[in-house]
Amino acid sequence: MAVGLNPPEKLLPIAGLRLGVHAAQMRYRNRPDLVLVELAEGSRTAVVFTRNRFAAAPVIVARRHWQQTKTRALLINAGQANAGTGSVGIDIAQQSCEMVARELGCAAESVLPFSTGVIGSPPPLDIIKNAIPVCAGNGSEDAWLDAAQGIMTTDTVAKGASVTVKIDGSPVTITGIAKGSGMIRPNMATMLAFVGTDASVDQDLLQQSLQSAVEHSFNRITVDGDTSTNDACVLMATGKSNAPPVVDKDSDAWRVWYAGLMQVLLKLAHAVVRDGEGATKFVSITVEQGASEADCLEVAFTVAHSPLVKTALFASDANWGRILAAVGRTPIDELDVSKVSIFINDVCVLDNGDTAPEYSEERGQQAMAPEEINLRIVLHAGGNAATVWTTDLSHEYIRINAEYRS
Amino acid sequence: MAVGLNPPEKLLPIAGLRLGVHAAQMRYRNRPDLVLVELAEGSRTAVVFTRNRFAAAPVIVARRHWQQTKTRALLINAGQANAGTGSVGIDIAQQSCEMVARELGCAAESVLPFSTGVIGSPPPLDIIKNAIPVCAGNGSEDAWLDAAQGIMTTDTVAKGASVTVKIDGSPVTITGIAKGSGMIRPNMATMLAFVGTDASVDQDLLQQSLQSAVEHSFNRITVDGDTSTNDACVLMATGKSNAPPVVDKDSDAWRVWYAGLMQVLLKLAHAVVRDGEGATKFVSITVEQGASEADCLEVAFTVAHSPLVKTALFASDANWGRILAAVGRTPIDELDVSKVSIFINDVCVLDNGDTAPEYSEERGQQAMAPEEINLRIVLHAGGNAATVWTTDLSHEYIRINAEYRS
Repeated sequence: MAVGLNPPEKLLPIAGLRLGVHAAQMRYRNRPDLVLVELAEGSRTAVVFTRNRFAAAPVIVARRHWQQTKTRALLINAGQANAGTGSVGIDIAQQSCEMVARELGCAAESVLPFSTGVIGSPPPLDIIKNAIPVCAGNGSEDAWLDAAQGIMTTDTVAKGASVTVKIDGSPVTITGIAKGSGMIRPNMATMLAFVGTDASVDQDLLQQSLQSAVEHSFNRITVDGDTSTNDACVLMATGKSNAPPVVDKDSDAWRVWYAGLMQVLLKLAHAVVRDGEGATKFVSITVEQGASEADCLEVAFTVAHSPLVKTALFASDANWGRILAAVGRTPIDELDVSKVSIFINDVCVLDNGDTAPEYSEERGQQAMAPEEINLRIVLHAGGNAATVWTTDLSHEYIRINAEYRS
Repeated sequence: MAVGLNPPEKLLPIAGLRLGVHAAQMRYRNRPDLVLVELAEGSRTAVVFTRNRFAAAPVIVARRHWQQTKTRALLINAGQANAGTGSVGIDIAQQSCEMVARELGCAAESVLPFSTGVIGSPPPLDIIKNAIPVCAGNGSEDAWLDAAQGIMTTDTVAKGASVTVKIDGSPVTITGIAKGSGMIRPNMATMLAFVGTDASVDQDLLQQSLQSAVEHSFNRITVDGDTSTNDACVLMATGKSNAPPVVDKDSDAWRVWYAGLMQVLLKLAHAVVRDGEGATKFVSITVEQGASEADCLEVAFTVAHSPLVKTALFASDANWGRILAAVGRTPIDELDVSKVSIFINDVCVLDNGDTAPEYSEERGQQAMAPEEINLRIVLHAGGNAATVWTTDLSHEYIRINAEYRS
């Protein structure tokens, strides 16, 4: 079902990051579901977590551990989200970290746990206990694609991206993987994304860079408007490349490296949308000439979340009245409907609040036919713009989510 | 598909209101689609309209006419919403009023036009012109049920309600009809609702009463979160009963009459939800012990709009993690997740942020099985409460909205 999305052919290794993957059979059968990432000594780590107030147990533990000491390992399980599991869930997350710590000979606080899957289910500690040594034993710098498969839940395609940039002539690599398909309205990060780089980046700058890149990638996608309890994005910088350290936001080194990071994150974010549950369309919604960027985002997300717009997209029906109705109900101050113009893949349907003179039903249908749809909404209220990416709403979305636990 | 909803058996006539109905064949074939309501001289009228900034042409004209003079007639067509139709649409709405005015011998400004149906389609003026005399000719005080059928679009059941109350021993009647099934997140009114009473009610009090009653009925329902461009609710008071006039909000007369009005509006609002597009469940969401009523409404609507909660309801799956995730992402200040409790039809699933000790998957499934579901979310943050009503999200919703224009 994924729209114009194939698994990555090759993901580049990051010196200093070893990934161990195992089919522990926690919930899924005969597919990898546990991933252990080991970070070389001296690595720095940046994190962003969900803003959902019902943060899952692993999110609570990971946040605490990350604040306490340098991170040396990540443990990720797919199948059970360990959210809404109260003190039992916290205990399981902590014990998992202790098991990893014993295996690798590090402190429990230097291990960050992550979970994804059904909310309300704690992961089975006995299975994890037996699987950790297996993951530790098969760790490899070349296992990014296996790891991308090991963190999937309702995803149909493994998601990853690699980029190489040059800092002062020395190559620096950035490789990332992500999972996510439903419950996608990230608010600080998508479901789960893990990104590594062999650049050496100053700790504060690493965190700032991740926050900024997430704000313009994962935080601008939505499938169903539901923010997950487990959203997390981790950026690990090993410093193992020969390039000089990145220490200053005003340097060419940072600009080059950040552009590469942005490229990887955008590709991952778009992959999540392309693999959105039941998606048959990949939809960009750009709102232009708004009074503020916040206004543009508000209009774009209101249109992106409208079930009526989404079902019209599914039907390839140029029912632009539904787009107009969604724009009209957006709660922003600077909205003069007599100035609004709407374009579907460059066909103008609404021109300053009125049906475009050159518009015809036939032209509308042609514009709506492709798998990739670009909606452009011009507010004529200022000089700001923003783009969000989303999917349509199909029968398959209902089937997947009505059957998810059965 | 409607959940526990049958057409009203009998709707009581309102002295002073004549309804004419005709199958004008504007868009639908062989079913009534044009309704003309004539108000006796001396009647008073209150109105509330959509807050969607893309208000349809008839909404713009009706609002202006209502401000100009006393209303003597309503003209309602089903099939074309006459929204997003620019100056052409305004012209059609005005000309329709002039045609009615000539037929009835009143001023064009005393006619209020209403339209419902596909956005972007202007109603055919030639057909309306020929149909108006037919409606005027067959007008009757006994045609409320026919009128309820004549304003339907994707509705599967005609919606109406009648109540009789006594003011100082004299009977007073309130009868209302409504239409609506999709694009339902009313913001001042549902798609269309027309309510008559033979009480004599002071003009300002009539308007205040309608606004208050709408706020606690139509404004607390949602099917898909999409606010229509054509929402309107009209309350007509003919003063033809023998009861003394209602002039004071502090009187028993007002309290009795308002309770009757509330009863009719709630029944109509619930009927819209029960007939929600593709609905298989009628869901009440009550949020209790919130810091404010606004907080309670915000949480209730966030849960009501979550596609993941709605698909779980469709599947009768007690996937309460999705309810918890929706509560957790609600943007309110006073939310301590460790104090939140959640009940599904009286089965406690979450007790102060933790899985309820007595909860079992079996009990959850039993609670989710009925057609009527009551979700109760207790915030333990204050002394306020609010209830909203909604539906599940089914395959049928997608089918209806993917095929609506085809």
